[in-house]
Amino acid sequence: MGALLTRRTHGVYIIAATPFTESGAVDFDSLDRLVAFYEGHGVTGITILGMMGEADKLSPEERHQVVDRVLARTDLPVVVGVSDPGLASLCALGRYAMERGAAGVMVAPTRGPAREDRIEGYFHAVAQGLGADVPLVYQDFPLSTGVAVSPALIRRLSQDLPQMVMLKHEDWPGLTKISALRDHEADPAVARLSILCGNGGLYLPQELARGADGAMTGFAYPEALVQSVALHAAGQVEAAEDLFDRYLPILRHEQQPGWGLALRKHILMRRGAIACAATRAPGPRLGARDIEELERLMRRTEIRLKER
Amino acid sequence: MGALLTRRTHGVYIIAATPFTESGAVDFDSLDRLVAFYEGHGVTGITILGMMGEADKLSPEERHQVVDRVLARTDLPVVVGVSDPGLASLCALGRYAMERGAAGVMVAPTRGPAREDRIEGYFHAVAQGLGADVPLVYQDFPLSTGVAVSPALIRRLSQDLPQMVMLKHEDWPGLTKISALRDHEADPAVARLSILCGNGGLYLPQELARGADGAMTGFAYPEALVQSVALHAAGQVEAAEDLFDRYLPILRHEQQPGWGLALRKHILMRRGAIACAATRAPGPRLGARDIEELERLMRRTEIRLKER
Amino acid sequence: MGALLTRRTHGVYIIAATPFTESGAVDFDSLDRLVAFYEGHGVTGITILGMMGEADKLSPEERHQVVDRVLARTDLPVVVGVSDPGLASLCALGRYAMERGAAGVMVAPTRGPAREDRIEGYFHAVAQGLGADVPLVYQDFPLSTGVAVSPALIRRLSQDLPQMVMLKHEDWPGLTKISALRDHEADPAVARLSILCGNGGLYLPQELARGADGAMTGFAYPEALVQSVALHAAGQVEAAEDLFDRYLPILRHEQQPGWGLALRKHILMRRGAIACAATRAPGPRLGARDIEELERLMRRTEIRLKER
Amino acid sequence: MGALLTRRTHGVYIIAATPFTESGAVDFDSLDRLVAFYEGHGVTGITILGMMGEADKLSPEERHQVVDRVLARTDLPVVVGVSDPGLASLCALGRYAMERGAAGVMVAPTRGPAREDRIEGYFHAVAQGLGADVPLVYQDFPLSTGVAVSPALIRRLSQDLPQMVMLKHEDWPGLTKISALRDHEADPAVARLSILCGNGGLYLPQELARGADGAMTGFAYPEALVQSVALHAAGQVEAAEDLFDRYLPILRHEQQPGWGLALRKHILMRRGAIACAATRAPGPRLGARDIEELERLMRRTEIRLKER
Repeated sequence: MGALLTRRTHGVYIIAATPFTESGAVDFDSLDRLVAFYEGHGVTGITILGMMGEADKLSPEERHQVVDRVLARTDLPVVVGVSDPGLASLCALGRYAMERGAAGVMVAPTRGPAREDRIEGYFHAVAQGLGADVPLVYQDFPLSTGVAVSPALIRRLSQDLPQMVMLKHEDWPGLTKISALRDHEADPAVARLSILCGNGGLYLPQELARGADGAMTGFAYPEALVQSVALHAAGQVEAAEDLFDRYLPILRHEQQPGWGLALRKHILMRRGAIACAATRAPGPRLGARDIEELERLMRRTEIRLKER
Repeated sequence: MGALLTRRTHGVYIIAATPFTESGAVDFDSLDRLVAFYEGHGVTGITILGMMGEADKLSPEERHQVVDRVLARTDLPVVVGVSDPGLASLCALGRYAMERGAAGVMVAPTRGPAREDRIEGYFHAVAQGLGADVPLVYQDFPLSTGVAVSPALIRRLSQDLPQMVMLKHEDWPGLTKISALRDHEADPAVARLSILCGNGGLYLPQELARGADGAMTGFAYPEALVQSVALHAAGQVEAAEDLFDRYLPILRHEQQPGWGLALRKHILMRRGAIACAATRAPGPRLGARDIEELERLMRRTEIRLKER
Repeated sequence: MGALLTRRTHGVYIIAATPFTESGAVDFDSLDRLVAFYEGHGVTGITILGMMGEADKLSPEERHQVVDRVLARTDLPVVVGVSDPGLASLCALGRYAMERGAAGVMVAPTRGPAREDRIEGYFHAVAQGLGADVPLVYQDFPLSTGVAVSPALIRRLSQDLPQMVMLKHEDWPGLTKISALRDHEADPAVARLSILCGNGGLYLPQELARGADGAMTGFAYPEALVQSVALHAAGQVEAAEDLFDRYLPILRHEQQPGWGLALRKHILMRRGAIACAATRAPGPRLGARDIEELERLMRRTEIRLKER
Repeated sequence: MGALLTRRTHGVYIIAATPFTESGAVDFDSLDRLVAFYEGHGVTGITILGMMGEADKLSPEERHQVVDRVLARTDLPVVVGVSDPGLASLCALGRYAMERGAAGVMVAPTRGPAREDRIEGYFHAVAQGLGADVPLVYQDFPLSTGVAVSPALIRRLSQDLPQMVMLKHEDWPGLTKISALRDHEADPAVARLSILCGNGGLYLPQELARGADGAMTGFAYPEALVQSVALHAAGQVEAAEDLFDRYLPILRHEQQPGWGLALRKHILMRRGAIACAATRAPGPRLGARDIEELERLMRRTEIRLKER
């Protein structure tokens, strides 16, 4: 069983895709392969059932099966996305995951309670429903949720809810938000918050420089995230960014909202990590021109890496 | 088994609440009572698992159980809301419902494909997934879905998809949209579309005058909708609106977005239709002041009705 | 010169339409007539250049001219809407209006700074730019601005900015927000905030019962607002609502977002308050069917009033 | 006087910043310098008064002055952004600009008419108001306007309005939209549309490969756009992208919505193109940490370019 998330957790928690067969079933063999692929590239942890894991298109049984399968296959810490329109379902999945050895759960605010006071109340209810022993990650992704919140709300929740130990940071623009949160922590009364960054990793070097603890995103070249974070942690800031920049052209291509998931899965398939690139309907599908464009970017990435 | 929806379906299809116990379980006894309540007030049909039925907070099993229970209890035509982030789940629930005797299914576009061409493609996929024999209702509710579409798209879908026989109309403002659709139908090549109106019924008399076929909404005084529609159909247009206006103060109170569901369920409870007014979390909860305010409006409604 | 707005201001501040000729010029004669119409119906004050005054379609010169004309014609307190994408333009118009005798200025948050901390910073900048002697009204209208804020932000701004003396309340649903603000004021350290309600007046009786000080909206029957507020203030709560309810059918018709402005102006024209109902392009235009529908509702309102 | 935009216009139309002094006045000397800077880097044309030109914060007089100044200083074709809440103001500015020698005008749909049929009607009104001889650019920027439209609407407008000769493409994701529009043109009955791409240029190499005619965006290194487009046009596709990729790290930094304008203006100031980097309030302001971060990226860009 993996360790629990803490306020000092750092590194790269890869957002795992959920592989499907062409007919739309969860492809558990590919899920095994994918976990091995992520492990092989040195990730610190794995986050499953996130937005990019198409969790909202999975049945409760399928979610349980994905939790079971991944936790059976890896000793890495596993974070489970449990966002759900119903609080009871959310908590049930969260407890299920924790009982089977998850390291924590992740929740995004829904459009429903979209006002800061309502979001605050919602996260209090989530924390109470899950229990004080379940590490909680706040997913702050306004581009997708439509809900942008102040750093002060994040700080307040982090202080009032001891179990809210981590922020998945993907506000955009969001660099000054990281700085605001870290500046708050200069006050010794303010407990530290672990900050892992999403948004496909698009600003990772800048985010690390501002005090982020790493990445939580699903870029199909996890080694880029792993090595950049490691180099940065080792004080090799320029080298970290030099490496990162080699991947940036394909990273920014993959980071197109919605559509990017199909690109990501195609890369994972071409890299041998999953058998089939299909997303579950309704999801993006690539045409011949899209694939040609993407594979050209893959080849360019390989060339760039050899220039090192 | 009830008849299937057609392009001539008219009357009042009440949007059914889903009753819960205080602890959050589906209260099937109350569901029976609620169906009897709706039948007793003369509705033409019942729509279950809509947004106001909190369908997104129900598990797939619970949705099946609600379908089974309602279809077992009534001979009225039953429309089943099947909106779901996943197309396969949507179609599975739709087929389940139709096999058990539903009259049709209702789908709202999701935020995901929010552009008219994507919505068009989505509804084609939905229609194909459900099959040509499943009557389909397009729920056009931009205030909730964030997706406003042109009358031309509705018309095109209605023509291209023979099974798309009904529009649940709740664009706002939307009166001219009804007229636009009815004007299209002056062309004999354009198949008629049944139009039932939502939005809590707020503009029902005007909607009927513009050619709507009735209401599909969940106002806790279904008799107001039933009698207004019947009087209007009988040519007693002024009497229909006189009656409607007596209910308007509480109807507009109930029509507050999100929050209104708690008001609606409280009225249903006070009228004996359900045992407990609770919504499932996260959902609105009434405080003492809210209840006092609402019950005063209920008493005022009763007084107004006696003045007839 | 009218008195300045204070934290105790109450009554009905009518949101004035801006009359145009058929060719789109500001119709200053009609503006005179409209001011007299409002005065004749007993309003407490007049708010000009609001959203429903189509202020964003007026040039700076036209805004100045409207300010000048209205202030020259009335001794009532006049609030001037000064929302503008540019802070300097906003402040310039605000100071212009105050120098000519306005009672205060009104500002809505823009989509640009749409996060509570940014809105807070924005209103601090607005207050500083206008100066401490300019009474400021916060227009809280999420349906139009896309920006919903917590009661706590309103309270904080009201406390930190002594000149922010009034809230134009039109959050929806918003009844509990009024109660939350009034409950805050039970703390003697919290300065009272004047609360006038918008949203076309749709929930005015309930808002008054929860502690609102009156209305700030543009309903084309201002006497309905005036008499309801007066009766409520005199303790005749049921009579106030009885009266209000007679107007509710046409009030809810007028309250359709965007479109409602054309309805409002048509009523004002039919009542002799303005010469021409045109909105400035791009704005809603009524067709024959829309006018027939509206005038029928006007006749029904008159009949209802005679039944008193 | 520059030539008019046509359906074959191509190259790089730089979106010009509007320089301000520290006190917020338009800095016309810097505007001259900026035009010379853009010319010196080989742009094909200049687009003034766009969103990134902070046009909505300029008074009508200031907009006229900017038009006059730029048209006096350059022989390049100049496109003028004329978006405005009022149609008459929009057309007046458009005609003013054309009379003084502009090459065309650009308009974005407003949130007001946000439904495809309303947008279609709006652009018909715009075209009629401007006149048939004014080349019109449709700015398709949903991230900012909130209005995403189908390729079919763009095509229909382009066919129905002969003067709508250009699309400023910045839907996101939007690559398949370019392909859809170009595929339409395989039909000889469909008139070609010039497509210049915005979004800061983030996907420029891919957009060119799909048939775009160039860029219309404000990246503070215009030579990157100019050289990439020229190399691509010369058939040196890989070299074009190799060059582009050297700029990508700072381009993606500048492309942060809203905030990016402050970064862009700081770069322009550091490159000597304008005297002061200030945006007009309310606008983003950089702190010391933001500047340090940005200047580091500038230095990294210079190093990268020397590696060529």
